[in-house]
Amino acid sequence: MRPNKVRQKWEQGKAASNFWLSSDSSVVAEFAAHLGYDSITVDAQHGFSDNSDMLGMIQAMAATSSIPFVRLRWNEPGQIMRALDAGAYGLICPMVNSADDARHLIQYAKYPPYGERSWGPHRAILYSGSDYRHEIDETVIVLPMIETKAGYTELDSILEVDGIDGVYVGPSDLALSLGFQPVADTQEPKVWAAIEDIANRANAANKKCAIFCGSVAMARRARDMGFHLVTVTGDIGSMVSAAGAALSEFEK
Amino acid sequence: MRPNKVRQKWEQGKAASNFWLSSDSSVVAEFAAHLGYDSITVDAQHGFSDNSDMLGMIQAMAATSSIPFVRLRWNEPGQIMRALDAGAYGLICPMVNSADDARHLIQYAKYPPYGERSWGPHRAILYSGSDYRHEIDETVIVLPMIETKAGYTELDSILEVDGIDGVYVGPSDLALSLGFQPVADTQEPKVWAAIEDIANRANAANKKCAIFCGSVAMARRARDMGFHLVTVTGDIGSMVSAAGAALSEFEK
Amino acid sequence: MRPNKVRQKWEQGKAASNFWLSSDSSVVAEFAAHLGYDSITVDAQHGFSDNSDMLGMIQAMAATSSIPFVRLRWNEPGQIMRALDAGAYGLICPMVNSADDARHLIQYAKYPPYGERSWGPHRAILYSGSDYRHEIDETVIVLPMIETKAGYTELDSILEVDGIDGVYVGPSDLALSLGFQPVADTQEPKVWAAIEDIANRANAANKKCAIFCGSVAMARRARDMGFHLVTVTGDIGSMVSAAGAALSEFEK
Amino acid sequence: MRPNKVRQKWEQGKAASNFWLSSDSSVVAEFAAHLGYDSITVDAQHGFSDNSDMLGMIQAMAATSSIPFVRLRWNEPGQIMRALDAGAYGLICPMVNSADDARHLIQYAKYPPYGERSWGPHRAILYSGSDYRHEIDETVIVLPMIETKAGYTELDSILEVDGIDGVYVGPSDLALSLGFQPVADTQEPKVWAAIEDIANRANAANKKCAIFCGSVAMARRARDMGFHLVTVTGDIGSMVSAAGAALSEFEK
Amino acid sequence: MRPNKVRQKWEQGKAASNFWLSSDSSVVAEFAAHLGYDSITVDAQHGFSDNSDMLGMIQAMAATSSIPFVRLRWNEPGQIMRALDAGAYGLICPMVNSADDARHLIQYAKYPPYGERSWGPHRAILYSGSDYRHEIDETVIVLPMIETKAGYTELDSILEVDGIDGVYVGPSDLALSLGFQPVADTQEPKVWAAIEDIANRANAANKKCAIFCGSVAMARRARDMGFHLVTVTGDIGSMVSAAGAALSEFEK
Amino acid sequence: MRPNKVRQKWEQGKAASNFWLSSDSSVVAEFAAHLGYDSITVDAQHGFSDNSDMLGMIQAMAATSSIPFVRLRWNEPGQIMRALDAGAYGLICPMVNSADDARHLIQYAKYPPYGERSWGPHRAILYSGSDYRHEIDETVIVLPMIETKAGYTELDSILEVDGIDGVYVGPSDLALSLGFQPVADTQEPKVWAAIEDIANRANAANKKCAIFCGSVAMARRARDMGFHLVTVTGDIGSMVSAAGAALSEFEK
Repeated sequence: MRPNKVRQKWEQGKAASNFWLSSDSSVVAEFAAHLGYDSITVDAQHGFSDNSDMLGMIQAMAATSSIPFVRLRWNEPGQIMRALDAGAYGLICPMVNSADDARHLIQYAKYPPYGERSWGPHRAILYSGSDYRHEIDETVIVLPMIETKAGYTELDSILEVDGIDGVYVGPSDLALSLGFQPVADTQEPKVWAAIEDIANRANAANKKCAIFCGSVAMARRARDMGFHLVTVTGDIGSMVSAAGAALSEFEK
Repeated sequence: MRPNKVRQKWEQGKAASNFWLSSDSSVVAEFAAHLGYDSITVDAQHGFSDNSDMLGMIQAMAATSSIPFVRLRWNEPGQIMRALDAGAYGLICPMVNSADDARHLIQYAKYPPYGERSWGPHRAILYSGSDYRHEIDETVIVLPMIETKAGYTELDSILEVDGIDGVYVGPSDLALSLGFQPVADTQEPKVWAAIEDIANRANAANKKCAIFCGSVAMARRARDMGFHLVTVTGDIGSMVSAAGAALSEFEK
Repeated sequence: MRPNKVRQKWEQGKAASNFWLSSDSSVVAEFAAHLGYDSITVDAQHGFSDNSDMLGMIQAMAATSSIPFVRLRWNEPGQIMRALDAGAYGLICPMVNSADDARHLIQYAKYPPYGERSWGPHRAILYSGSDYRHEIDETVIVLPMIETKAGYTELDSILEVDGIDGVYVGPSDLALSLGFQPVADTQEPKVWAAIEDIANRANAANKKCAIFCGSVAMARRARDMGFHLVTVTGDIGSMVSAAGAALSEFEK
Repeated sequence: MRPNKVRQKWEQGKAASNFWLSSDSSVVAEFAAHLGYDSITVDAQHGFSDNSDMLGMIQAMAATSSIPFVRLRWNEPGQIMRALDAGAYGLICPMVNSADDARHLIQYAKYPPYGERSWGPHRAILYSGSDYRHEIDETVIVLPMIETKAGYTELDSILEVDGIDGVYVGPSDLALSLGFQPVADTQEPKVWAAIEDIANRANAANKKCAIFCGSVAMARRARDMGFHLVTVTGDIGSMVSAAGAALSEFEK
Repeated sequence: MRPNKVRQKWEQGKAASNFWLSSDSSVVAEFAAHLGYDSITVDAQHGFSDNSDMLGMIQAMAATSSIPFVRLRWNEPGQIMRALDAGAYGLICPMVNSADDARHLIQYAKYPPYGERSWGPHRAILYSGSDYRHEIDETVIVLPMIETKAGYTELDSILEVDGIDGVYVGPSDLALSLGFQPVADTQEPKVWAAIEDIANRANAANKKCAIFCGSVAMARRARDMGFHLVTVTGDIGSMVSAAGAALSEFEK
Repeated sequence: MRPNKVRQKWEQGKAASNFWLSSDSSVVAEFAAHLGYDSITVDAQHGFSDNSDMLGMIQAMAATSSIPFVRLRWNEPGQIMRALDAGAYGLICPMVNSADDARHLIQYAKYPPYGERSWGPHRAILYSGSDYRHEIDETVIVLPMIETKAGYTELDSILEVDGIDGVYVGPSDLALSLGFQPVADTQEPKVWAAIEDIANRANAANKKCAIFCGSVAMARRARDMGFHLVTVTGDIGSMVSAAGAALSEFEK
């Protein structure tokens, strides 16, 4: 079984890095996977990829050691299983508001007897190895997103759901839900208080915490705060900021 | 007729900026077109787009004032006309080695009586306006690339070809052809001597010169040297450099 | 914020026109958007587009003043948010049978505190403008379809749901549900009685009513009956009727 | 109305053959459809096709007498209707665990008054004929999958659901759910006992039974056991086994 | 061997009808193929399809009796053979200016000993039948376009080229080349004189003549003038005219 | 630099195996690449892939040790360079009839000073390594096809062309050109005499010979005859034969 590099980093006591793919291009994905991040997330929710794009993007990562995550479109059985069959080693599920939501996610993300995931990981076996059946439920990382007031309120019960590895914080939506602007790199003290609280409670529960960041500074702050998996930047974001800066510099 | 923003810049005596698209994604193209560059080039030669990708990418730019260029796959009638029918306002043609090559390019890039371009710009009319027939031959910018020893040798005769607006320097291939490493942001004095010579001879011939740059510093240097159109950076390049730097910074 | 042309027409007391896209082609979409209709609907239910097609089609409209609507595949959070993130300024939701269905639609179509739409409208901001966060909930038009006996029965309670702009009548399904043939351009008096009743009750509730029409005659009848948004024809329908007529005429 | 070849076989008292498409290619689908199988299933669950791929694959079958089945991604209204609108003459629905699940499937697979399928089978009419409205509910074959312990337990009540033509056995998932390895061509006596029991109870209830097989030997065994529709092999499976054998033979 | 319906019409002494596909959608192609035209042309020159689109569009026609034509991107071996391998029963080649151009076209369109077409018509055999090898060179219709002054001048020698079935007139380019506006439905007497002259000389040479028309009236005029194959209208054209008229009528 | 497995086999004095991809699916390509063949050819001539499909298929092979070959659509600079930029480690060029044809192929397949290939192998570097510039011209295998009477006649001069690694025999076209049926697994003694002659002359010239085979028996015969690279079977071929045999066996 191909190991999950994020778990390996965790076993070494280190935070793992993550890169975010909003675009729909297997070419962009392949360049991203060669950057050296521990993991790459295909964003099937707010990104622009369909299932067939997602598959091509994950295929394009297979020659590297960056492992594929998928941010699911929604907490739906069909989507959960398509992402896993494509070879995902990590699932980030948006808008989990309760332990029931989290249990629903696990139900379709794990094979019997732990869940009811349906068998058919044809391509995933090519990526992972022939012992997929016996290893995947321990290999895949499943992270419900905490990004609503409801989810934040239910954090402790969500963290207790069997099969969950931890939680992933969506700071934009969390800020929005708490009444602030939806800015990834927020400076709002109340949002940061919530972020830190989530990290602390996840650590206290012996679970992992992960987060989307709007800047490297934020990523470093999150890492130092105890986050185990940190999305540092992404394809569109890094292109837009670098290319915009280049134009300004050129036009000076 | 929608004006050609690059020509407008030229009429103001300014250098125009260009952004390079190697990827195949209309989403990336749309984000790029909102950055404010004067023009965006879809690279159909070393980029990853097919004709249908090129079309979607050009469509995605139409709501902005960045005008679409295409770097042709090759100096072939079918490709030249597909790029123009898609709405291109600029053509960059690789590996032009002689005045005959340049005349071949013009032959299929201009309508009778100047050339033999075939009629059918259905989509281009949507983009440009109903006076396309009468305006396009004066609107479109056609730039043969000078990127081989042969092309450099024939520079003056290429610059004299009727219908050519100027030349576009490919520094990587030019360096390679002159016996150096194919590095866009080259430091080779002999390559720079050739680049400067091309700029001077194009200016002396009252033609435009354009160039692909490997860094903003190079872009500024080229602009100050008299280049009229400067490719400052591109999608994959800016993403890779910014995302690589972010990872290094995160892992410190 | 780019204005919603349909709302502008409504503010002028006029009915807005709508064109329907069943095909999956961004090229067809761009030609359609240049026809002058106030709005263009990508049909993600009975049409042939996937999410990536939908995105390309909406991108291709952006240079025109025709605003994009999406007829959702189904009343599902993932689909609702993909359509809005793509830039939709109008949502038409099939098979809404109750006020609960309508509330579910609104829940995922509006940002907190009105709903629970998740943040990430990267491309929509390119289309709309940087004040998207503050304007979109007032800009987007949300129309549950009344096209079943159940939905018709619950019309008044559906019209009362907060956030709903009005209702969209699907005459084929409504006819089918009432026991008649599913013909868009139906002549059934009982179906027309229902259609007129829906228009009247929507107007009485100070809400908008919209409708899919099978002919221009029907479209005019609907407009004169008080409908505020009228789908006049669509891509496949207009091509099939015009091209079929041309063949008959040719073969005479 | 184009007849359903599987029903024709059944009327002749014969078992019908089925071929499975996991890939996403209309080219592969067209070659498959020319092999002579009675039916071809596009696997939208564990296969690699999106809705647009599914449509192209079904279009590519239309010139043959092999009729299209779709194994649904999930028991969801949007997916059920997309498959039927694309022209499917058979639906195989994964993970049906109860009579309620089966009724949900029928609800969206049949037109009023039997169900609530929404009207819009534009392409399906091209394939089937103009009497689609009156014939399709009797033509299409709807088969919930029995592939979980829960579904197996509820088999009799599922078989009683009005509109269901029978059941389709997923031996891999059934084996997994019963505590065995998920192998299509299983040799487990307890799994085979369940398979045979399902066949017997379906036959006793005057319903059809169908099954996915991992080998021709298994397919023949199933047919002789009373299965009415037998998936004999598929695209990826047959390619991998034949091409693997060829390499072994070549390297001897 | 599946017969070529256009040849059948010719054998009956009738003009054959043709429909033009500029879009890139297999869905549009399938609807078009069900309209009843004798033949459908995929326009790979000024249309928007790549080779993979062309293939899907041709696949979608296979269940109908409308036979597929391809207007080639250019007179290139690779393109000629891709169109034929996809199953084309007719080739329309743009911008043929001389007998040499026509011979080049035939060289790659016919198998040895008549030409040098390369073997590999895998999909074409599915469409045509197993006797493809022996029948296709007599079945396929090859039509160089006469649409330039040069081609018109060389008409007689082009008509004499062995393997050519006749010529196809492109009136827009012909008008442009003769110094007039490129309008398909031209009223220019000098263009019509040329058109009629081409028809007469083709008929005199016992060859076929075909033409693209900008209106049904023009199509009828061409038919009555002796044209054997008449492109009556197309997908984008018929949609734009019908949908534009509908909007005008609605807005009255 | 990632080594070329075919060259490695050759250095061990062994024949290398090759698998042929006619389909257009990256999924099929990934399954194929896991079969263990030394090399996989994407057929861009008679197969169904466009450039973007080719790229996705080659990306999907990168995690395996099977190296990518491309059979070019035609001997055209644009196509040659697209295949190499995509990462091809082998080129098979159809219909090479003379030493001039072979020199044209080499001219665009090798960097200066050996040829005029243009720089821009962005993705190829990801696959191969950062020393691509210095290694690729020695790594890539370039094989003109001998498949016409003309090419066979010119065999010796073709074998002498600098940069050519050997020749690839297309037995179907060769048979056709010699006046026989185009059958890959031909039994014609005169065709086999030519095949053996080509093998002998290539070996005598210290060049490699390669061949497409229609059966494993033919593949073994070719290997034993001295062929260094043998295409044993392909995706569509192996699927069709295995799936057809399964149906026959099932229906017994």
